[in-house]
Amino acid sequence: MGWDLAAYLKTRQQEVDAALDRAIAVAIQKRCLRPCAIPCWWGANACDPFCVWRPASWRGGSDREAMAVACALEMVHTMSLIHDDLPAMDNDDLRRGKPTNHKVYGEAMAILAGDALLAYAFEHAIEGTLAAYPEIPPARLLQVASRLGRAIAGHGLVGGQVVDLASEGQPDVTEETLEFIHTHKTGALLEVAVLSGAWVAGASEDLCGALRQYAAAIGLAFQIVDDILDLTGTAEELGKSPGKDAAAQKITYPRLWGLEVSQAKANALIAEAKAVLAPYGEAAQPLQALADFIVHRKS
Amino acid sequence: MGWDLAAYLKTRQQEVDAALDRAIAVAIQKRCLRPCAIPCWWGANACDPFCVWRPASWRGGSDREAMAVACALEMVHTMSLIHDDLPAMDNDDLRRGKPTNHKVYGEAMAILAGDALLAYAFEHAIEGTLAAYPEIPPARLLQVASRLGRAIAGHGLVGGQVVDLASEGQPDVTEETLEFIHTHKTGALLEVAVLSGAWVAGASEDLCGALRQYAAAIGLAFQIVDDILDLTGTAEELGKSPGKDAAAQKITYPRLWGLEVSQAKANALIAEAKAVLAPYGEAAQPLQALADFIVHRKS
Repeated sequence: MGWDLAAYLKTRQQEVDAALDRAIAVAIQKRCLRPCAIPCWWGANACDPFCVWRPASWRGGSDREAMAVACALEMVHTMSLIHDDLPAMDNDDLRRGKPTNHKVYGEAMAILAGDALLAYAFEHAIEGTLAAYPEIPPARLLQVASRLGRAIAGHGLVGGQVVDLASEGQPDVTEETLEFIHTHKTGALLEVAVLSGAWVAGASEDLCGALRQYAAAIGLAFQIVDDILDLTGTAEELGKSPGKDAAAQKITYPRLWGLEVSQAKANALIAEAKAVLAPYGEAAQPLQALADFIVHRKS
Repeated sequence: MGWDLAAYLKTRQQEVDAALDRAIAVAIQKRCLRPCAIPCWWGANACDPFCVWRPASWRGGSDREAMAVACALEMVHTMSLIHDDLPAMDNDDLRRGKPTNHKVYGEAMAILAGDALLAYAFEHAIEGTLAAYPEIPPARLLQVASRLGRAIAGHGLVGGQVVDLASEGQPDVTEETLEFIHTHKTGALLEVAVLSGAWVAGASEDLCGALRQYAAAIGLAFQIVDDILDLTGTAEELGKSPGKDAAAQKITYPRLWGLEVSQAKANALIAEAKAVLAPYGEAAQPLQALADFIVHRKS
């Protein structure tokens, strides 16, 4: 592709970590800093910030202007992981190769750390963006904050998680339900990630529509690959325990379609995502590289 | 006072409940509606919406314009109660005379219901206000959303709760720590409640300053009275189990100062709150009545 995603992500990783550390240090009282700052984002692959930056820069915006929104998305993502890992939910001990938040700080602090990160995401998206980009039309930022809320609540990741939990161990989960789960649980937030940089930069409706299609395709592909890796990956590769889905009798794409068909569908979705952005030429290459990365990743 | 707070709250209660039910029904997918809609606000005293409405109307705004923000505050308040009641936190079975959310729906759903309410509060504050009051300057709404986030995260109720939990059973908790806990745990959100109507209506800095002082005084008084009621109230009066603070070896004002001094300080704070608003004459009477209500309540 002529554009090295892995090298880019590696270079930018420290920048994102530093921005998140700064944001958290400012926001959280010293006395309750630690459970919030156990950074699930350490070792994360910076895909969310990447999604925010690229469309922003594409429209003449800068990474700096979009950084606060990118950090906010990482905070929301982190809170969802902290709460999902709780004993009452997925009961996971490992996340990205490290002990989960509640294993280190206890359940009460993990619940509170998630709540704080969720609320602070909104404050930081607003105040951080206004600080870096004071001339932004306030209505654009309102749109980002409102869509972020929608992508988390009943129409977003929590809605998907609720249906996911309710479907565990059910013998008759349909493909429709599985799609509902994933478009909500992971798709909604990814859509905001891909679009919020465009919103901050004031992108056209056309571009937003293309980005929405792209986000839907890579989101579903991401989930299919996730399900495949849970079956075929090792704890070392994944940085988390594999086989959790089967143990919890969760409905997954490989269970529904088999491994080969699942992989073929993931490949087809990635091809679709890339085709949608093809008319945008070279400017779209980084997002094309991200699509390839999602389907070829090993963790 | 010539203004009957109890009658007013009773009349408006149904209106608030109906607005919240409408907001939730729109927001939450049918399949995951129920744990979010177990309404901790049923039977609540509508103080938060009241605080939002009054200053709004005072500045020429209407209750209708401020309703979405009032509902958002009730959602945040409700989420904090649902999460506080969890076994890993205060482990409460009763709340306002009803079984707590996790007793009915289980812990996982209670965690998710709280997360959904928290995120949706931001979406609804923005979208609901824009629908009812399209001509509001967007910067005012950004301020409301940003301050709401701040009042929940590390500088707000979660920060207070973290220090509260960390102080349980400690023999050497100081008055300073107790004040930190309460100004954060309950004071921050109350300040947003009292001020957000004023922000929506574009109130002057002077009025905002007076409202801020008023909120700080009634917030602390509210907490002192809460501690007193936990010692002296019955489960029937309170609608929740009394004596939880003592059982959890929590530091409280009566433990620090004794019952009589605590009551006297609460009375003094209420007098202070009323004095701050005295210059505003008759328009301030409803908030004066609220101050009296807080110190004389039995639950």
